[in-house]
Amino acid sequence: MFFGGDYNPEQWPEDVWREDVELMRQARVNLATVGVFSWSRLEPSEGVYDFGWLDRVLDLLHDNDIQVNLATPTASPPPWFTLAYPDAMPVRADGVRLAHGSRDTYCVNAPAYRAASRRIVTALAERYGAHPATAMWHVHNEYGTICHCDHCATAFRAWLRDRHKSLDALNERWTTAFWSQHYSSWEQILPPRATQYRANPAQLLDYRRFCSDALLAHYLEQRDILRVHGDQPVTTNYVMAGWTPLDHWKWSAVVDLVAIDHYTDEPGDGGLAQIAFAADLARSWARGKPWMLMEQGVAAMYTPERTVALEAGEHVRRSLEYVSRGAAGVLHFQWRASRGGAEQWHQGMVPHAGADSRVFREVVELGRTLSALPPARPPEAAEVAILWDDEAHWALQNPALPATGLDFRVSVEQAHRVLWQHDMAADFVHPSHDISSYRVVLVPSLYLISDEAATNLAGYVERGGTLIVSYFSGVVDPDTRVRLGGYPGALRDVLGVRVTEFQPLTSPVTLSDGTTGDFWSETVLLTGATATATYADGRPAVTRHQVGSGTAWYVSTRLDPPGYAKVLALAGVMC
Amino acid sequence: MFFGGDYNPEQWPEDVWREDVELMRQARVNLATVGVFSWSRLEPSEGVYDFGWLDRVLDLLHDNDIQVNLATPTASPPPWFTLAYPDAMPVRADGVRLAHGSRDTYCVNAPAYRAASRRIVTALAERYGAHPATAMWHVHNEYGTICHCDHCATAFRAWLRDRHKSLDALNERWTTAFWSQHYSSWEQILPPRATQYRANPAQLLDYRRFCSDALLAHYLEQRDILRVHGDQPVTTNYVMAGWTPLDHWKWSAVVDLVAIDHYTDEPGDGGLAQIAFAADLARSWARGKPWMLMEQGVAAMYTPERTVALEAGEHVRRSLEYVSRGAAGVLHFQWRASRGGAEQWHQGMVPHAGADSRVFREVVELGRTLSALPPARPPEAAEVAILWDDEAHWALQNPALPATGLDFRVSVEQAHRVLWQHDMAADFVHPSHDISSYRVVLVPSLYLISDEAATNLAGYVERGGTLIVSYFSGVVDPDTRVRLGGYPGALRDVLGVRVTEFQPLTSPVTLSDGTTGDFWSETVLLTGATATATYADGRPAVTRHQVGSGTAWYVSTRLDPPGYAKVLALAGVMC
Amino acid sequence: MFFGGDYNPEQWPEDVWREDVELMRQARVNLATVGVFSWSRLEPSEGVYDFGWLDRVLDLLHDNDIQVNLATPTASPPPWFTLAYPDAMPVRADGVRLAHGSRDTYCVNAPAYRAASRRIVTALAERYGAHPATAMWHVHNEYGTICHCDHCATAFRAWLRDRHKSLDALNERWTTAFWSQHYSSWEQILPPRATQYRANPAQLLDYRRFCSDALLAHYLEQRDILRVHGDQPVTTNYVMAGWTPLDHWKWSAVVDLVAIDHYTDEPGDGGLAQIAFAADLARSWARGKPWMLMEQGVAAMYTPERTVALEAGEHVRRSLEYVSRGAAGVLHFQWRASRGGAEQWHQGMVPHAGADSRVFREVVELGRTLSALPPARPPEAAEVAILWDDEAHWALQNPALPATGLDFRVSVEQAHRVLWQHDMAADFVHPSHDISSYRVVLVPSLYLISDEAATNLAGYVERGGTLIVSYFSGVVDPDTRVRLGGYPGALRDVLGVRVTEFQPLTSPVTLSDGTTGDFWSETVLLTGATATATYADGRPAVTRHQVGSGTAWYVSTRLDPPGYAKVLALAGVMC
Repeated sequence: MFFGGDYNPEQWPEDVWREDVELMRQARVNLATVGVFSWSRLEPSEGVYDFGWLDRVLDLLHDNDIQVNLATPTASPPPWFTLAYPDAMPVRADGVRLAHGSRDTYCVNAPAYRAASRRIVTALAERYGAHPATAMWHVHNEYGTICHCDHCATAFRAWLRDRHKSLDALNERWTTAFWSQHYSSWEQILPPRATQYRANPAQLLDYRRFCSDALLAHYLEQRDILRVHGDQPVTTNYVMAGWTPLDHWKWSAVVDLVAIDHYTDEPGDGGLAQIAFAADLARSWARGKPWMLMEQGVAAMYTPERTVALEAGEHVRRSLEYVSRGAAGVLHFQWRASRGGAEQWHQGMVPHAGADSRVFREVVELGRTLSALPPARPPEAAEVAILWDDEAHWALQNPALPATGLDFRVSVEQAHRVLWQHDMAADFVHPSHDISSYRVVLVPSLYLISDEAATNLAGYVERGGTLIVSYFSGVVDPDTRVRLGGYPGALRDVLGVRVTEFQPLTSPVTLSDGTTGDFWSETVLLTGATATATYADGRPAVTRHQVGSGTAWYVSTRLDPPGYAKVLALAGVMC
Repeated sequence: MFFGGDYNPEQWPEDVWREDVELMRQARVNLATVGVFSWSRLEPSEGVYDFGWLDRVLDLLHDNDIQVNLATPTASPPPWFTLAYPDAMPVRADGVRLAHGSRDTYCVNAPAYRAASRRIVTALAERYGAHPATAMWHVHNEYGTICHCDHCATAFRAWLRDRHKSLDALNERWTTAFWSQHYSSWEQILPPRATQYRANPAQLLDYRRFCSDALLAHYLEQRDILRVHGDQPVTTNYVMAGWTPLDHWKWSAVVDLVAIDHYTDEPGDGGLAQIAFAADLARSWARGKPWMLMEQGVAAMYTPERTVALEAGEHVRRSLEYVSRGAAGVLHFQWRASRGGAEQWHQGMVPHAGADSRVFREVVELGRTLSALPPARPPEAAEVAILWDDEAHWALQNPALPATGLDFRVSVEQAHRVLWQHDMAADFVHPSHDISSYRVVLVPSLYLISDEAATNLAGYVERGGTLIVSYFSGVVDPDTRVRLGGYPGALRDVLGVRVTEFQPLTSPVTLSDGTTGDFWSETVLLTGATATATYADGRPAVTRHQVGSGTAWYVSTRLDPPGYAKVLALAGVMC
Repeated sequence: MFFGGDYNPEQWPEDVWREDVELMRQARVNLATVGVFSWSRLEPSEGVYDFGWLDRVLDLLHDNDIQVNLATPTASPPPWFTLAYPDAMPVRADGVRLAHGSRDTYCVNAPAYRAASRRIVTALAERYGAHPATAMWHVHNEYGTICHCDHCATAFRAWLRDRHKSLDALNERWTTAFWSQHYSSWEQILPPRATQYRANPAQLLDYRRFCSDALLAHYLEQRDILRVHGDQPVTTNYVMAGWTPLDHWKWSAVVDLVAIDHYTDEPGDGGLAQIAFAADLARSWARGKPWMLMEQGVAAMYTPERTVALEAGEHVRRSLEYVSRGAAGVLHFQWRASRGGAEQWHQGMVPHAGADSRVFREVVELGRTLSALPPARPPEAAEVAILWDDEAHWALQNPALPATGLDFRVSVEQAHRVLWQHDMAADFVHPSHDISSYRVVLVPSLYLISDEAATNLAGYVERGGTLIVSYFSGVVDPDTRVRLGGYPGALRDVLGVRVTEFQPLTSPVTLSDGTTGDFWSETVLLTGATATATYADGRPAVTRHQVGSGTAWYVSTRLDPPGYAKVLALAGVMC
């Protein structure tokens, strides 16, 4: 079990380092993430390296039996780089080119940035690939900078050629006949830059896909260099926030272990539910490989308004929640709270007040607890799966939908929380994965679905599975084109319904079975299914359809948690 | 009676076209608006035209007795154009030049755009001016793109020279002595670009006038080309939203019929009142010429939060409200709901679910109803007129007024709704129109008024008319300079009052007659008028002034609807 | 006692001027601020001057015994200037270069702007330095334009070299080791331009200091020119708003009298408390020199929603509040309400309605009252001082703190208002000033404190003073680096406490003494102090520490006014 956090010794004089390792030993820290933002110290000017301090840090940690999760520093190029290669600075949709002065200021498609990345990573790999302290490579940090520059435009076009093959196909799939957007040459295609009115949703979605892939190419380039010089596992840390720049299934297939940065913002049990959700996602993305918590807050959580201290013992309790769901490590941002800089008010395992503090005592207690844990048992196989698809998530971020507030992640999290409240384990799966081992599969507002995935779900039901599909699922294809003839498009047959109209609600409604729906309703026609709950006017609200040896449910409104639990109970998920 | 909607066959394979005309016939559609955003399909690269598909569309429609409202496609230049002529892309006030990727991305003052417009319109006119299906020309779409580029600066200066003749006059009228804005050459004058603090309101107002005229010049250029090749009526569709880029009286004088795009957003009776308001405006702007509804939603309305389905029968009921107020046609956006593109979630007459749907059945019912209507009787002459002036509207959008929330259109709509609630017909008139035929003229918060118009209103009262003026009227001249000596400036004499101070309210107040005012109050001194209602401290709130054989009323606060109705009753408008 | 306001005769024909002076005499106006935004009239094109109208204005005022506060017009360069020297236009953080069209559009570090400023100021000084009407020089207006252009970058680097001497020192003080911001050459340092994520707080703070100094250099350059040609006092007017671009102690040391522009926005007593606060600040900044109110509204106040008329007599009452706190003059913006321009809806001493108005009558009444006042007695020496430091104010505007809503000025104003409610006089002092004469010194949320100032406060207590420090004080050094080992850092010893953790509150809490705290709490360990009130869990909330012959109090939460008053009473400030 790994325990530790981001360690940034370059912010401190060397006499503090000795106190650091003493305190780390006291807290039983065994893994320190080093070098995440150290580029400007490692390469103070172009081609000039200063590794002496890092040599001493790694030796010191190694001498104290603390392993190192060694980072490549590419998430923040130094000021000298950004001045030398202004074309490598990211450009906002409105054309503003950003300047250094913060972090993450780079264009991942800029040749100069890629070249500089390769050089520093090669130098690091050559020097530390064989260092006994180096236990793991941490590539970059929280990938996510989106740019709209001409380098990106060029790379986007190449990516589009690869995806769509011909311009005719792209025009068809993007529905460019609408609003006179027909492209007669590839060169006319741009990133979604500031324009007069709403953008094309297919263009927006492909740009999200492209950005994820472009960042992944940068990751893979680093991984391949690191592999030449060592055999440590290589990974990067995902941001577990609502806005997600990465296709996590695709990335998780190539990282050696899945690592997440997770910051809760709900007090009490809500925080535990957030942890269960994030941990189950990470565990599921890992698909049997190890996963770990690479960052969490220290005995505090951050809400938009304030940093809220956790109650005594809560930090240990929350950390164990990750572990109980399979985390191979519990790390924090960061070891020692910074004196200065933009995150000087982030908590540290060693706070500003020093080791004589509640926070450090909780850290020591957590270290003691983790070290005393029995070897982890593999989690029991879950009987329930929930579909997760970043592409569907992005597609539902279309700025012009029948209602504002539609959010794939929120729908998924609501479904997961109901299971969590009833102590039901859950896996997340991709719509096209093999789901035959699950008793029940939940599909919460999966706006976009491919033909292949729809076939997968139908076959699952046919062969005995239980499928529970929520409102506004299955309506568009992978190019965000609406599937015609009635919603929910690709899932119509398996559900035995045909929806002719969406009817977002302005206030909650009570269904015939006493449960409550709000936000959304639909005109559901039965084409094989039977209604288990209806709206006040008798229209079906929740339906059930026997298919082969399985059952497919459709929930056409946003049920409150008891209402959703009732459907799960009817479907036999829980009693 | 025209019935139909925007028809975009280029978004669909040709076999769908045949279903389209079958369904159109079933719904008794007799007018289809074709080609609104078809530029990139008609001219796929510069100077290369592809009219084959449009030939087939027009022939097919004609063969099925469906007339065509043929659009010029200039509202959205194709991507090839915008890359070839980057100087024709619009520039925001902050200098950001917009990119293609949406619609309406053009600068109407860019020579390259104007030349390209002329070419495509000429080609269309030559090909379809004599086509038997072409019943009407629909120029452009929802004119309204505002740009701040150097082409606009040049054109603005020419427009200003024409309006103000000399720089001295402009400096005087714009009060450039304030804040050191004196212009010593025409070249120093800019569009209202991003600046350090508040802009000059006279510059803002003249820019609004200029933009309306610049867009109108583009319209007229197209109309003149179309006239060479056919004698169909030519028009364009006005957006009936709160922000209005056009001077509707000026435009309506040159279009062959007035056409409006109107989307309600209130449920129930509120939606009918909104329709009455929009229809009365359109009818009044037309001044005896026909007018029509060029776009409405289909059995649904759009609020900022959601698309709300209309109740059964409501779409027919609402459509008939336009007809009862004189609409020569009821059209929709759009015929068939798009599969993709930014407006794929706009309703269609044929929804995604297809013809077997409530929505299409309502469309058929509407078509049946409209076709069975007896010939329209001309509406009865209204006894009440309400002043409407876009220039006054724009002037009151000055960002620095004595209170936020002052809005000409809202004030006018409130007055109109009180009449509507009492089944009183109303016309809208320009302040300088001949109003002698009306028994009563309402003037709701007409901030800006010219000397000529003030004289017109005074003469009207003198000769027996009843004038009812609401707060914050008549205070500035056409250059937004305050009329000195006491408000309401140009209307002081006819009203027999002199206002020395505006006193916006923080909470509602009860007047002596039991009615309620809120938002605004004034210190009204009587200079001939008598008070019919007073504030709590005895100051006059509502006044009445006998002038010649007429009467002029002044309402110095924002009365609630019953209070305003009471004034109308006292003035003899209704009992 | 000066009485008057901004007078802009260039906005009016000359016949109005004669009415102006008649009305001024009637109102006993004796000081008119002339020429604030007259540059484009004084220098209509580069190097061409037109002083004739200003000669006539000054002669006319002088002939009527009205003195002139003559402004340099540099706050708004004319349009010809901004077109000739586009590099002198200010640039926003996002790179947008602003255009003329408003006011204050200049970059104070642009050489062309500085040269043009020197020329027009020299011309004015030569012409009017000896004019008998010229009683005072009013440099510029409300200094505050912040720019991010390359001129500013160059000047910022020079300023940084001067402050930090070496790049190593700057890197250390700015904690550039965080996020890879290490600078290897001065040229890499930029103004805080738009960047990907949060900016470095030390960079932000130094930029605020730099901007204040850069504006001050422009002031001093003008003052020195004016001094060559006359011996009138020279000043400029400070904006008394929440966002303050100037270091008022530094500026007040060099202006000949302190002048403030103060606009209240609270009704009733709240407005009087605001005036007491602003006046006490101005008086304190002046440190024995005269101070005056250079602008206030006229019988009205401006809230974000509306202009609110003051009740009868209230304008006189409010004006006297400034006088009772030592104002040597009561001036207004502006004499005659403008007909046009962006501030046409600002009140004037002569309103649009003319002299026959409540507003002008109140002005006359104020003039009469002020002229009848007995000679001002110097205010009694205050026994209480409150610390004020603009640098601490700026530092607390760090966008990433443990809670949003932390605001130095608000904390100071809350403390001042409690004193005001109890009729206690207060001075403001800088943390490093000699405070030995005060019985009590209040330190409200003084986030940043220097070692020197901390020593000053400790010595003050040691020698018998009473110090009352509120939460989140003393935590960072002048480079915004957290003082380690426990909060409140530099004040730990004198307070006898060590705070290990900040715990912002989500809802109010009741302390053991019945008072209420909200917004914030801390974990306070006693290291010499005793608790006088505790939180519900027994942790100290308010503490008292005897040091030498004095006492130091710590208030670790935001007490409501009665709670804060109770601490003051316990500390012997009031009974």
